[in-house]
Amino acid sequence: MMRISELSARSGVALPTVKYYLREGLLHPGEQLAATRADYDDSHLRRLRLIRALLEVGKLPVAGIKQIIAAVEDETMPVHRMLGTAQYALSPAVAPEASEAWEQAAAEVDDLVDEYGWDIHARAPARAELTEILVRMRHLGMKADLRPYAEAANRLVTEVEMSKVPFDGPRDAAVEALVLGTVLYGRAFDALRRLVQESESAHLLGRPAAQG
Amino acid sequence: MMRISELSARSGVALPTVKYYLREGLLHPGEQLAATRADYDDSHLRRLRLIRALLEVGKLPVAGIKQIIAAVEDETMPVHRMLGTAQYALSPAVAPEASEAWEQAAAEVDDLVDEYGWDIHARAPARAELTEILVRMRHLGMKADLRPYAEAANRLVTEVEMSKVPFDGPRDAAVEALVLGTVLYGRAFDALRRLVQESESAHLLGRPAAQG
Repeated sequence: MMRISELSARSGVALPTVKYYLREGLLHPGEQLAATRADYDDSHLRRLRLIRALLEVGKLPVAGIKQIIAAVEDETMPVHRMLGTAQYALSPAVAPEASEAWEQAAAEVDDLVDEYGWDIHARAPARAELTEILVRMRHLGMKADLRPYAEAANRLVTEVEMSKVPFDGPRDAAVEALVLGTVLYGRAFDALRRLVQESESAHLLGRPAAQG
Repeated sequence: MMRISELSARSGVALPTVKYYLREGLLHPGEQLAATRADYDDSHLRRLRLIRALLEVGKLPVAGIKQIIAAVEDETMPVHRMLGTAQYALSPAVAPEASEAWEQAAAEVDDLVDEYGWDIHARAPARAELTEILVRMRHLGMKADLRPYAEAANRLVTEVEMSKVPFDGPRDAAVEALVLGTVLYGRAFDALRRLVQESESAHLLGRPAAQG
């Protein structure tokens, strides 16, 4: 148990910010000891870690964070749906287009999902996102073959990523792990692709001597 | 050969925008037929495609695009370095930190690069980017194991991605393919990871009946 000043020190979140989260209902109240004194515990430290992950890494607006915290606090909501609330909030909102190109790309995304046997909600935002990217690729004259990427994503997520999400522990911790993993490994993979591209370009074309 | 109005129509770039690119030197001049008439050809169509890729997909500022166009037009610049100019422009600029955590993460990135035998410039922006992500992960208490992601990126780029870049054709086309592939397949992979995450979550935790 600790006072609010210690909660601030141990979490690294400034005291006025901790108070703001309390007022906004993002952080649950401590145990009230007197009119101006309350005690906080590990659950508050965990919640502050989650808020920081959603805010600084997920770049989510406070309204979105509130929605996720509500899902975390609603113990009757199954963990799968709670994680989905967070994950959907991280996805860019893409509105379907009324065009033949869209219909065709959406059907291809459906085929891909069926082929892998993925169990995905009909209105999952990543479906529309992927459809939009396909439409864009085709419009730009690209061949747009998602298969090798689907294969890599399928392997990484099933073999590595989901085992890092602690489903059995506190609900805050599961959401935090999902958000941090999704965003930060996504960025890491992006940087890694660019590293390999540079190396392959040097390999295939020869690095000019002057570039050293 | 075509007039500027046809160039605009065939490229889908509005006439005032085409004229703006000419004034800014992003689009090379056509063959001057008279004081107010010039002829344009396929090289202008390719250049407009490249500008659109850099602007709309790469989200690069005009100053960055000018730098890339200069590299495309400088036929004495080797293709590897021209592609590097475009690729580095796509990378977020990350300034190294003076900290022990940074030094340690940078050494890990070096080890990874050595392990795979990647041929990468010492000041490649993706090195600093990856270092920053590692520091961030460690700071947040994550295990931060890049190996499975490095493995997947290595396989995708060497087996699939680089074969899509037409090294032997016009210089504009090579840069365009690199930029479109890097950005759009990056976004697609991100959406695919989220699709598989949802499916794995449903698989591991069970999809609640009410969610349909």
